[in-house]
Amino acid sequence: MTAVPATILSAIVTIIAVLVYFYMGLAVGQARTKYKIAAPAMTGDPMFERAVRVHMNTLEQLVVFLPLLWIATVYFRTLAWLPAALGVLWIIGRVMYMQGYMAAPEKRGTGFGIAALANLGLLILAIVGIVMSWSAATA
Amino acid sequence: MTAVPATILSAIVTIIAVLVYFYMGLAVGQARTKYKIAAPAMTGDPMFERAVRVHMNTLEQLVVFLPLLWIATVYFRTLAWLPAALGVLWIIGRVMYMQGYMAAPEKRGTGFGIAALANLGLLILAIVGIVMSWSAATA
Amino acid sequence: MTAVPATILSAIVTIIAVLVYFYMGLAVGQARTKYKIAAPAMTGDPMFERAVRVHMNTLEQLVVFLPLLWIATVYFRTLAWLPAALGVLWIIGRVMYMQGYMAAPEKRGTGFGIAALANLGLLILAIVGIVMSWSAATA
Repeated sequence: MTAVPATILSAIVTIIAVLVYFYMGLAVGQARTKYKIAAPAMTGDPMFERAVRVHMNTLEQLVVFLPLLWIATVYFRTLAWLPAALGVLWIIGRVMYMQGYMAAPEKRGTGFGIAALANLGLLILAIVGIVMSWSAATA
Repeated sequence: MTAVPATILSAIVTIIAVLVYFYMGLAVGQARTKYKIAAPAMTGDPMFERAVRVHMNTLEQLVVFLPLLWIATVYFRTLAWLPAALGVLWIIGRVMYMQGYMAAPEKRGTGFGIAALANLGLLILAIVGIVMSWSAATA
Repeated sequence: MTAVPATILSAIVTIIAVLVYFYMGLAVGQARTKYKIAAPAMTGDPMFERAVRVHMNTLEQLVVFLPLLWIATVYFRTLAWLPAALGVLWIIGRVMYMQGYMAAPEKRGTGFGIAALANLGLLILAIVGIVMSWSAATA
């Protein structure tokens, strides 16, 4: 038995992340029906607006997360599984963000912070990986 | 003559998808001018708001679509052209979504459903491809 | 000393682009605090709404930019550094867009245009690169 390549681990993390994000979009649709807010309106009930913000904020974080995850996965090979592990942490943070925000807007901070920390970790791994690859390419 | 690699097909699909999305953004700008809605306002006329929603909803779907398309393209090699074909279906669905929504908000369902079906197909191919690659890597 | 691979250059550009985008998100959070706009509201003060639009419009452009940057980087090998150079131009354009929009909404055009020009250049390189790769694959 050989090790599973890090790219497969990050592909699995990517799939779960976009599914969690897709689920948040379904929650917006359900809130639209529940609070009787006809399209194209995006306001009208605080609970609907919270669902919209959870979905939108996760989109904003996702476009930072996915590039950093994959640059870290491709270039940082020292602990090859670490980018995917930080990806799992990011997913956990975003699920906590959703649960916190729907309970009360002021409870959204913890999940946001955990996911931001995961992004910061991926940023560091991406930079370290690029510096190592650059050194190897120009050596 | 050898076959065109699946990655080239999916690259073409990706370019068309982002161009369709970019076109929807131009439509928002045109509606802003037509209905005299000064930036930064994002509300003020139902037709402008529909254009905004078409653009935004396609963005929300695009960040699910592109990762699934590429994971399916890289890992699912049994019918290598199938991910790109589902990508074409996704594009068709989003164009129908735009046309339906601009005609009447309640007509946006069909196009949305077709694109969602394409995403579901890509999700299945991505999972099957990853399972096959995982099996091969650990065999 | 050998040349740095174009993929490393584009990875660096990608990291800087998502960091600039992330910074715009922090500016939204700061404006939310400064103008006392409680979540989940996304309106209430023109300066807050400008920060929101800078962030959102950059997101809209980012999902067009990153796929084009990477397709151009992978397929256009004639001047391998050119996609990354256009990426730097895109980043400059988006920073100018932010500064212009925050000064006055009607000053957002120049930066938007520069970034759009960079995207257009990447689109052309991506298409040229794909045509060349297609020709090579079927020759």
